[in-house]
Amino acid sequence: MILETINKPGDIRQVDKENWDELAQEIRDFLIEKISMTGGHLASNLGVVELTMALHLVFDLPEDKIIWDVGHQAYTHKLLTGRREGFDSLRKFGGMSGFPKRGESPADAFNTGHSSTSISAGLGYVKAREVTGESYNVVSVIGDGSMTGGMAYEALNNAAQVRSNFVIILNDNEMSISENVGGLHLYLSALRTSHGYSEIKNGVEKSLSRTNLGSRVAEGIRNTKNSLKQILIPGMFFENLGITYLGPVDGHQIGQLIRVLQEAKRVNGPVVVHVKTVKGKGYEPAERHPARFHGTEPFEIETGLPKNPKHVANYQDVFSTVMCKMARTQPNLAAVTAAMPGGTGLKRFAGMYPERFFDVGIAEQHAVTFSAGLALGGLIPVFAVYSSFLQRAYDQVVHDVCLQNLHVVFAIDRAGLVGSDGETHQGIFDLSYLSEIPNMTVMAPKNKWELADMLRFAVGKMDSPVAIRYPRGTAWDGAREWRAPIQIGKSEVLYDENGIALIAVGSMVKTAMEVREMLHEIGYSASVINARFVKPLDEAMLLRASKDHRLIVTMEENVRTGGFGDHCLEYLNDIGADCRVINVALPDDYVEHGSVDVLRNECCIDAQSVLKRIIAAYITGTEQDT
Amino acid sequence: MILETINKPGDIRQVDKENWDELAQEIRDFLIEKISMTGGHLASNLGVVELTMALHLVFDLPEDKIIWDVGHQAYTHKLLTGRREGFDSLRKFGGMSGFPKRGESPADAFNTGHSSTSISAGLGYVKAREVTGESYNVVSVIGDGSMTGGMAYEALNNAAQVRSNFVIILNDNEMSISENVGGLHLYLSALRTSHGYSEIKNGVEKSLSRTNLGSRVAEGIRNTKNSLKQILIPGMFFENLGITYLGPVDGHQIGQLIRVLQEAKRVNGPVVVHVKTVKGKGYEPAERHPARFHGTEPFEIETGLPKNPKHVANYQDVFSTVMCKMARTQPNLAAVTAAMPGGTGLKRFAGMYPERFFDVGIAEQHAVTFSAGLALGGLIPVFAVYSSFLQRAYDQVVHDVCLQNLHVVFAIDRAGLVGSDGETHQGIFDLSYLSEIPNMTVMAPKNKWELADMLRFAVGKMDSPVAIRYPRGTAWDGAREWRAPIQIGKSEVLYDENGIALIAVGSMVKTAMEVREMLHEIGYSASVINARFVKPLDEAMLLRASKDHRLIVTMEENVRTGGFGDHCLEYLNDIGADCRVINVALPDDYVEHGSVDVLRNECCIDAQSVLKRIIAAYITGTEQDT
Repeated sequence: MILETINKPGDIRQVDKENWDELAQEIRDFLIEKISMTGGHLASNLGVVELTMALHLVFDLPEDKIIWDVGHQAYTHKLLTGRREGFDSLRKFGGMSGFPKRGESPADAFNTGHSSTSISAGLGYVKAREVTGESYNVVSVIGDGSMTGGMAYEALNNAAQVRSNFVIILNDNEMSISENVGGLHLYLSALRTSHGYSEIKNGVEKSLSRTNLGSRVAEGIRNTKNSLKQILIPGMFFENLGITYLGPVDGHQIGQLIRVLQEAKRVNGPVVVHVKTVKGKGYEPAERHPARFHGTEPFEIETGLPKNPKHVANYQDVFSTVMCKMARTQPNLAAVTAAMPGGTGLKRFAGMYPERFFDVGIAEQHAVTFSAGLALGGLIPVFAVYSSFLQRAYDQVVHDVCLQNLHVVFAIDRAGLVGSDGETHQGIFDLSYLSEIPNMTVMAPKNKWELADMLRFAVGKMDSPVAIRYPRGTAWDGAREWRAPIQIGKSEVLYDENGIALIAVGSMVKTAMEVREMLHEIGYSASVINARFVKPLDEAMLLRASKDHRLIVTMEENVRTGGFGDHCLEYLNDIGADCRVINVALPDDYVEHGSVDVLRNECCIDAQSVLKRIIAAYITGTEQDT
Repeated sequence: MILETINKPGDIRQVDKENWDELAQEIRDFLIEKISMTGGHLASNLGVVELTMALHLVFDLPEDKIIWDVGHQAYTHKLLTGRREGFDSLRKFGGMSGFPKRGESPADAFNTGHSSTSISAGLGYVKAREVTGESYNVVSVIGDGSMTGGMAYEALNNAAQVRSNFVIILNDNEMSISENVGGLHLYLSALRTSHGYSEIKNGVEKSLSRTNLGSRVAEGIRNTKNSLKQILIPGMFFENLGITYLGPVDGHQIGQLIRVLQEAKRVNGPVVVHVKTVKGKGYEPAERHPARFHGTEPFEIETGLPKNPKHVANYQDVFSTVMCKMARTQPNLAAVTAAMPGGTGLKRFAGMYPERFFDVGIAEQHAVTFSAGLALGGLIPVFAVYSSFLQRAYDQVVHDVCLQNLHVVFAIDRAGLVGSDGETHQGIFDLSYLSEIPNMTVMAPKNKWELADMLRFAVGKMDSPVAIRYPRGTAWDGAREWRAPIQIGKSEVLYDENGIALIAVGSMVKTAMEVREMLHEIGYSASVINARFVKPLDEAMLLRASKDHRLIVTMEENVRTGGFGDHCLEYLNDIGADCRVINVALPDDYVEHGSVDVLRNECCIDAQSVLKRIIAAYITGTEQDT
C-alpha cells in the first residue's frame, strides 16, 4: 500500500510519478470502504482525488494555505495530511470531523461547512501576507455550485485588485449538491465544451498572426475594449472581473493538473483555474447517482444500496406530501429552495408543479427576497431551507419579508441538533434569530401530524411571515391522540397535572413526556404543555401554568439567549409570577459532530438530564443553575 | 410650473415632449430647494431625474412595478406619483419617508433601504406574473455600487432562466455612496468608454459582412463558443450569464432613454439596460462632492455649505482618531469597510495606512469572512460597519469568525435608533443577534472616552471576536469623571445608592443618569451602573445589585428579546433573586423615521418614560408591564 507511506503533509512527494495513478486508486478504494461503513460525503470526495494530490504535489503544506469551500470534499486532503486513522471515527462524537478543522491539523487553513466562503477567506490570507511580508501561497478550492452564492462573487469582485498571486480552483462537476442552476451554470457548460486553455491560446494566436484582418473589423475590435482577449480566452466572465482564467483542464489527469497549477502559481494576481471533475468518479453507483452519494448512510459496496434501508417517514416526507396536496387546491402555492430540492423534500413538488417550483441555486439571500417578490405578486411562497443556512438570509428576513409583513412561509428543516455534520450545520440559533424579528410568527411541531397541521395553517390561515422549524430525520409518530386545531399563539395541554409544568417546543415535547413518566415513577406529577408557538407567546397559558405549578420547566433545542425560555422569563417577570423557572436549552457554545442522541446527552437536554435538574431544583432544592 | 400639473401616476404623459427638459429642470430646482431645508439624499436623486421621467413615460404605474434598489434615489418617483406635498415633512416623524414605502403609494412596488435587493424582488414579481397570468412590466433599478452586493449577482444568475420580459436598469454613476471598487467597477469603466449599443452593433456587423475572415480565425472563433457575440456586444459579463445587454446610454437624454427602454420592453427575457448618469447632476456642489451630498444636512443653496456647521465630535471622529493612533504602534492593525469609508470614519486611516485599509465594496458578507482570513494571516482586523448592515453577515459572524474564535473586532456604528433614515436603518437588533453567538464579546460605551478605551481594549487585550456598538452622531462627553480601566465582563458603578438599580447599556447610561436625578427630585435614590459588557454578563455585579436593591431596571436601545435585559433575567432567575425587574428596551416593532429624540419618546425609552414605569412599579406599585 502506497497510502500507508503517507503519514504527514509532504509525504506524497516521495511517491514516484509512475505510482500516482495507483495511489489515486488506493485512495478511492480506501474512501469507498470507509464511508461504506461510517457514512459520510462520498461523491464530492471521489471527484477531487487527483486534484487534491496535484495540490499537495505543487504546494507546501502546512505553510501554503488551501481553503476548501463547503469542506465536504476534504477527505483526500485529510488522508494526505496524516489523518488516515481518523476515518474509523469519521463524524462520530469525539472522532474526526467530516469538514476541515483547524483544531485537527495545521494543514487545515480554514474551517468550512457553509458554501461560498473560501474566496473571501483566501483573500484575507493573501492581503495579510502582503502586509506581513510572508511568502506562502494561498489556494481556494470552490465548486461550481458554491459559485452561485453571492459572497463568492463579492470576493471575486474584491480579489480583482490583488497584485500578488492568489489561486482559485473552480472545481466544476456540473452540479452542486443537487443539479446546478442559473446563468453561470449555462456559461460554464459552454466553457466546458471549449478546448483546453493552451490549445485555444496557441491555435488562435497562430491564426491571427497569419491572417490579414479586415481593417474595419480591427477597428471594431479596438472599439470593444479587450475583445481580442475575448477571442483568445474562453473565461471572459472572470477576465471581465480582472481575474486571469486558465482552463478548462481535466481534473482526473494529475500531470495536466500539475502543469496548470504551476502556471497558476506564477501569475501575479488572482487566477481562476477551471478544473473539470466528475462527482463520484471511479465508483459507478456514485457516478450514476451523485446526489444520493453526496452525503450517504452506510452502504453495500457491491450494489451501492443502503445497509439499513429507511422504513420510517421523516419530516421531509411529511413536508413533501402536504405541499403536493395543498398545491392541488391552491393554485397560488409556490415552493422555493436554495439548491436543496432533494434534502428538503421538494422533488415531488418540482415534478408535479414545475411552474411553481423555484430552485434558485445556493443563494439563500436571493431566495428570501425573491419570495418576498412572489408574495407581492400574489403567490404564497414556502421557502424550504435548512436552519443553519437560513442564517445567510437573516437581513433579508428582517428587511424584505418582515418589514413589509409579507406572507412568506419558512419551512425550516434541520432545526435543532443535526448530528454528524457537526458545528456548522447545527440548527441551534433559529428560534432566537427569528423571534427577535417583528411581525414574525414562529412555530414548531411536536410530531409528524402537527407538522402537517402547521403547514396547512401557515399557508391557509396566516397572512404574514411565518416560520415552522422541525428536525432532521425520522418524524415522531407518538402523541397522535393530541391533535387540537392550530390556533395562532395557542399552546396545547397534553397533561394537566400539578406541581411541575413542562412547557416544551417541538422535538422537546417527546422529551417532556419522557420526563413526566420518570417523575411519575418517583412519585411526582407534571403537566406537559406543547408550546406550539414560540412567537407569539401563549401568555394565558403561562399565566395559568405559573399559578397552578410551583416549577415551570421550559424545554427547547436552541441556544438559551433569545429563545423560548427567555420569552417565558420576560412574561413571568412582567406579571411578577413567583414560581421557579428552569430553562432547558442548549449551552452557549458550538456543538460538534456526533449522533443526535449523544449530543443531546452532552448538551444536557435529554430526559435524564432534565430530570436531574428538576430533582435538584424542586425536590432536593440544591440546584444552582449556571 | 409644469410640475404642479403632475398629481398622480401617469400625469407626466400629458406633458409635451418639448417641455420635458423644462420639467426636468423644475424637478431639480424643487429637490434642491426642499432638501436644502429638510436635508436628505440629494446627489443620487439629482442623478436620476431624466431616468425616472423616462421610466414613467414608458411604463404604466402603478400597474407596472418599478423597484428602486436601496431606494435613496426615489424622490423624483415620489414627485411623479403625487407626493409633492410630502417633501415638506420629508424624513420627519409622521412625514414622508426618504425611501419607497408601499404604505405611502401603490406606485411603490417594494420597500427598500438596504442595498442589492431589487433584482431578487423584481424576479419574484416576474415569476409570480408568469403563474398568475398577469401582464404588468417589472423594472428593477440598481446602481453600479449595489451591483457589488452578492445577492444582486445571485439574482442575476437566477434571472437568466426567465423567458418573459424583465428589465434591469443598471444606473451607472461610477460610484456607490463612496467611490466604487472592485473588478466589476473596472469592467464597467471599460464599457462606459465603448460606443453605444447600437453603433457598435451596426458597425461591427457591417465590417464583418464585408471582410473575408481568415479561415483559421473563423475556426478559433467557432471553438470559442459565443465569441462572435463577444465582438458585437460590450456587455459580455451579463451576456455570459444569459442576460441581454443594452447600452451604455446617456442617462440625461430623455429621448434616448425612451428609445432604449422601449427596446428593452420587447425582449423576451431578462435585459440589462446600462444607463450612464452623473451623481448630483445639475447642482454644481453636488457634482463636485457627490459623497458629501449623498445624504446631506440642510445646506445653503448658493454655496452648498451646511446651514448648521458641525462643531462637536461624533463617535465616528473618536473612532477615526483612535484607529489612526493605534495603527502607529500596531503594525498589524487593519481596517475593513464595506463601501463606507466616510460614514464610518475610516477615511483618515485609509489615507495614512493604505496598505492596511480594505474597502471591499457593498459586500458585508465578504467583509466578515475576509476579516476572518486577515486574522488568521496575522492581522487584527477592525470591521467598521453600520448595525443594520451587519445583519447581512450574520451567518459569516456565526460560521467564519466566532466558530473559529478569531480575533476580529466589529466596530458597530449607527447602533440603536438612527433617526431620519427610518425603519431599514435602525440598528436595533445587534445586541440580540450578536450576543446569541458563542465566543462573541459585546460591549457598548457610555461616552466618547469609553469608546476609545473599549477600542484599545478590543484590539490590544482581546484575542477573540468582539463587538463594540455605538450610536450615530454626536458623541456624549458627559460622565467624564468615570473612567475605570476596561476589564472583560466587568461593569462600572457610577452611583452606588439603594432602592433602585439602573443598569444601562451604552447610550442609555446618559438616560439612566437623568432618571436618577429625576428620582432624587421626588425623594428616591438610585444606583447607576454602566453595564459596559452585554456579553459576558457581569454576574457578580448583578448578584450584588439584586441583594442591595428592591428594583432593578435594565436599559438598552435594542429590542427586548435576546438583549441585555433578557441576559439579566436569565441570571436573576437562575440565582432565584427576589427583587423586581423592569426591562427598558425597544418594542417588538419596526421604528419609523423621525428625529432620534422623538423616536426615543415614541418608544418609551426616554428618561421621562422610564421614570413613569419606575414610579408605577416601585412607588405606587401599579405597573403591569406588557
